[in-house]
Amino acid sequence: MKRKCLIIAGGELNPEFASCYIKEKYGSMGPELIITADRGLEGAKILGLQPNIMLGDYDSVALELLEEYEKNDQVVSVQYPTEKDYTDTHLAVITAIEQGAAEICILGATGSRLDHVMANMGLLLLGLKAGIETELVDSNNRIRMVQKHMTIEQKNQFGSYVSLLPFTEQVKGITLKGFKYPLNDADFSMGMSWGISNEITESMAEIKIRDGILYVIESKD
Amino acid sequence: MKRKCLIIAGGELNPEFASCYIKEKYGSMGPELIITADRGLEGAKILGLQPNIMLGDYDSVALELLEEYEKNDQVVSVQYPTEKDYTDTHLAVITAIEQGAAEICILGATGSRLDHVMANMGLLLLGLKAGIETELVDSNNRIRMVQKHMTIEQKNQFGSYVSLLPFTEQVKGITLKGFKYPLNDADFSMGMSWGISNEITESMAEIKIRDGILYVIESKD
Repeated sequence: MKRKCLIIAGGELNPEFASCYIKEKYGSMGPELIITADRGLEGAKILGLQPNIMLGDYDSVALELLEEYEKNDQVVSVQYPTEKDYTDTHLAVITAIEQGAAEICILGATGSRLDHVMANMGLLLLGLKAGIETELVDSNNRIRMVQKHMTIEQKNQFGSYVSLLPFTEQVKGITLKGFKYPLNDADFSMGMSWGISNEITESMAEIKIRDGILYVIESKD
Repeated sequence: MKRKCLIIAGGELNPEFASCYIKEKYGSMGPELIITADRGLEGAKILGLQPNIMLGDYDSVALELLEEYEKNDQVVSVQYPTEKDYTDTHLAVITAIEQGAAEICILGATGSRLDHVMANMGLLLLGLKAGIETELVDSNNRIRMVQKHMTIEQKNQFGSYVSLLPFTEQVKGITLKGFKYPLNDADFSMGMSWGISNEITESMAEIKIRDGILYVIESKD
């Protein structure tokens, strides 16, 4: 069964942006599976979305809201101990995969704590390894990982810029077509800033990689 | 010659925080070398700091301010073409190293564009490779890289939390002492969220690594 899954994490959430993005992405049907991670439940409430699964150690969600949803028959609550090896958002991604998600969109995964942002970005690897299209989105950025091949239609791109940053230490044989700065069989290594602020100049842009993994960060100005 | 270098990049800058941090870090003498990257010049102006070197493609700094500083005898201006292989902040770090910096602090390197944030964080590798203590700081985070060994005095820690995230794909033989969650010869791999939100519980915390590189992200709540 193909399931489009939305995860709402407990970071910052711009409700206006999130509402528009969800409408555009999922249409009137909405996502088939909604998982909230801890304080992400507040995000679901604000967005008027009914979560299917709420989980976390519940150390950041408001108690009143938690109690309200604990009484809600349509949501399954999975509480984890506070001292655990995974972050709440990590558990949400694992759960989405276990539930047979065919694609995953994570909202509420950015904010001022850069350790959380970095860790959340790293979770894209779980989707990549499971062969599930996974994206992490906020009002300024859409972040994905690519291992072999990705195309981006210009009309569907997010914002104006596409930056490519190494996730693995070495990324070899990068070929870019349809970009302002094309590449042919180039190598990137971590700590390099070569791939920043590229732009799509054709109706379809293409990223090919021989070896390694890149972050693809599309962003607004 | 030992030179304490401050780089002000063109991202977001909280002037109140930055002013306090600089005062605490450098005392009344201030940093010995100040480099601004493009719009970082505006940060220097706001903070009342005289830059020694201003550089960049000058595509984001206000023209009026640029002209004001172009007339300033105390600052060397180095303009780069817009289409270049390095970001302005990258060029600032290279320049700091060339100028004999003994330590580097980067402010204004975070903000809403996560491609820039990620790329800037990756620049810490340049400092690490050159054997120069390098940190990237904003009002919520202090980010460093560690390859072999680092100690953090509790009284000098930044905020409440210390998160350790793999920079290299594998980080092996991690031993943590003086932390709430100690470790003994543990391995981390990228995409794992184990190292998030640790806390220092003794007067001195110690991080030892056998192989690989970790980000050390200290953050406020």
